[in-house]
Amino acid sequence: MSLVVVGSMALDSIETPFEQRDDVWGGSATYFSAAASHFTEVQLVAVVGNDFPEEVVSFLEGRGVDLAGLTRTDGPTFRWKGRYAYNMEDRETLDTQLGVFEHFDPELPDGYRDAELVFLANIDPDLQRKVLGQVKKPRLVACDTMNFWIEGKLEALKKTLASVDLLIINDGEARQLAGEHNIVRAAKAIREMGPERLIVKRGEYGAMLFDGDHVFVAPAFPLFDVIDPTGAGDSFAGGLMGYLAGVDEVNQTTLRQAMIAGSALASFTCEGFGLDRLRKVENGQIKERIAAFRALTHFEELGDAALSTVA
Amino acid sequence: MSLVVVGSMALDSIETPFEQRDDVWGGSATYFSAAASHFTEVQLVAVVGNDFPEEVVSFLEGRGVDLAGLTRTDGPTFRWKGRYAYNMEDRETLDTQLGVFEHFDPELPDGYRDAELVFLANIDPDLQRKVLGQVKKPRLVACDTMNFWIEGKLEALKKTLASVDLLIINDGEARQLAGEHNIVRAAKAIREMGPERLIVKRGEYGAMLFDGDHVFVAPAFPLFDVIDPTGAGDSFAGGLMGYLAGVDEVNQTTLRQAMIAGSALASFTCEGFGLDRLRKVENGQIKERIAAFRALTHFEELGDAALSTVA
Repeated sequence: MSLVVVGSMALDSIETPFEQRDDVWGGSATYFSAAASHFTEVQLVAVVGNDFPEEVVSFLEGRGVDLAGLTRTDGPTFRWKGRYAYNMEDRETLDTQLGVFEHFDPELPDGYRDAELVFLANIDPDLQRKVLGQVKKPRLVACDTMNFWIEGKLEALKKTLASVDLLIINDGEARQLAGEHNIVRAAKAIREMGPERLIVKRGEYGAMLFDGDHVFVAPAFPLFDVIDPTGAGDSFAGGLMGYLAGVDEVNQTTLRQAMIAGSALASFTCEGFGLDRLRKVENGQIKERIAAFRALTHFEELGDAALSTVA
Repeated sequence: MSLVVVGSMALDSIETPFEQRDDVWGGSATYFSAAASHFTEVQLVAVVGNDFPEEVVSFLEGRGVDLAGLTRTDGPTFRWKGRYAYNMEDRETLDTQLGVFEHFDPELPDGYRDAELVFLANIDPDLQRKVLGQVKKPRLVACDTMNFWIEGKLEALKKTLASVDLLIINDGEARQLAGEHNIVRAAKAIREMGPERLIVKRGEYGAMLFDGDHVFVAPAFPLFDVIDPTGAGDSFAGGLMGYLAGVDEVNQTTLRQAMIAGSALASFTCEGFGLDRLRKVENGQIKERIAAFRALTHFEELGDAALSTVA
């Protein structure tokens, strides 16, 4: 299935407890496309300024990403500056410079409008809806969002959610959006806002899928070295949506598999600074890691014997 | 296999965001035994004062728990008072009254000394070692501990850890004990202190087993109603150790199964205040919930096809 993503391409300044770097290639659409490109051809919609490194564009081209929807504009590229806490999960946004993103008015190339899968990365919910309006008859629309929009543009966000099939959102943001701490209750409240399916990203604790009456829990891959989690969520979404596009089928079975594919891609992203690790990961390594997820979660059927010994 | 537990029997005062109750039946040995009793006969070592309700003792007797190791002393039973935060995970200890626990000097009945499985619940590490010294040739010794002992009795705790096969400990306490936030690194550091195997309890996120070179991740059961998590960790340990005793075999396969059994028992405990739900749970319900864990974690092998479409 064809897959369109709309999101940011950015230059990040990232500070972890161990390292600080500026001008790191980033942005949700970048991570998403790099991850998804292992499974399918991605059609990207984004905007960059004239300071954006040609090297990133060549990298994505090399990964088979369709860049017909990439706009280059005079002005500075979107910049995000953030600092991670000691736990490598909590992060603080130190600065955001919208740059050319401020007047981003996404116009889908003709070849994108028949897309069957659409991922609306974490951008202004009005923009998300604008993109969605240009896709003729998508089979699955997924989106991400964040506290910034929950707090500042809730009504616009709710309109977007009403036309989305799958919301992929962080733990804390799910609780915030629902106004409910218990995640099972939060999931119910969010799905009543529109998305039939919900994926809750839980950082080092993995991810949960709520689909019909079913819940599926995928662990995060236990990493001895977490270098930088920036982009892990977008890599997860990229692996997930890319996998669905690759297997050409969206159902309970493929969604669970896609959660594992997404978790595998996200784990590689965490192993390097910015895009460092993800851009070099090979299909063989992805296959190995996916296999490791089975070892991580598999258990044999429990014998009844044990339960019957005592009344 | 025979199973001995040493721990507390207590009267708790519990405050959740929704309810407050005094004189709730509690204590690590109580929860552990109630949970384990679904799989095996438990031999309990604990002390209670003359204010302890006979009803609890009768309940445990009815569950087939061997109470030869229960001491009744003049004086007040151990009391714990705590308050849960809005997230139903973080809790604050408001008061602790040791009572008869202060001079607890556990002496194992003869019939307990051949125990093959031993669980040292969260008590003074010197007492844990004292009990352990009375068991002739255990096949597996597991223990729990908490921040109170990590902060106040680290050297004694390290001595205990040196003679323990399996440590079952909370997420935050594992990080504290290891002085390391990354849980994979923390696990390595803790296992170097003695325990060959480690289980990290992660509350609503489930539990992780580190065993040899393997890691196994079990989710927590997603509950729509979390009434009171008090005793969930001890119920987890009880279900786990009870299961191992019931299947009469400790290896990678049974340990993974035991993690699921423990997670199932812990989930019931959270569904009621204090022991309310756990004391009434039936074997059939436990079997059903164990089966639900498979649905929660199962995924089909991922097809290679998706990965090969693009270079």
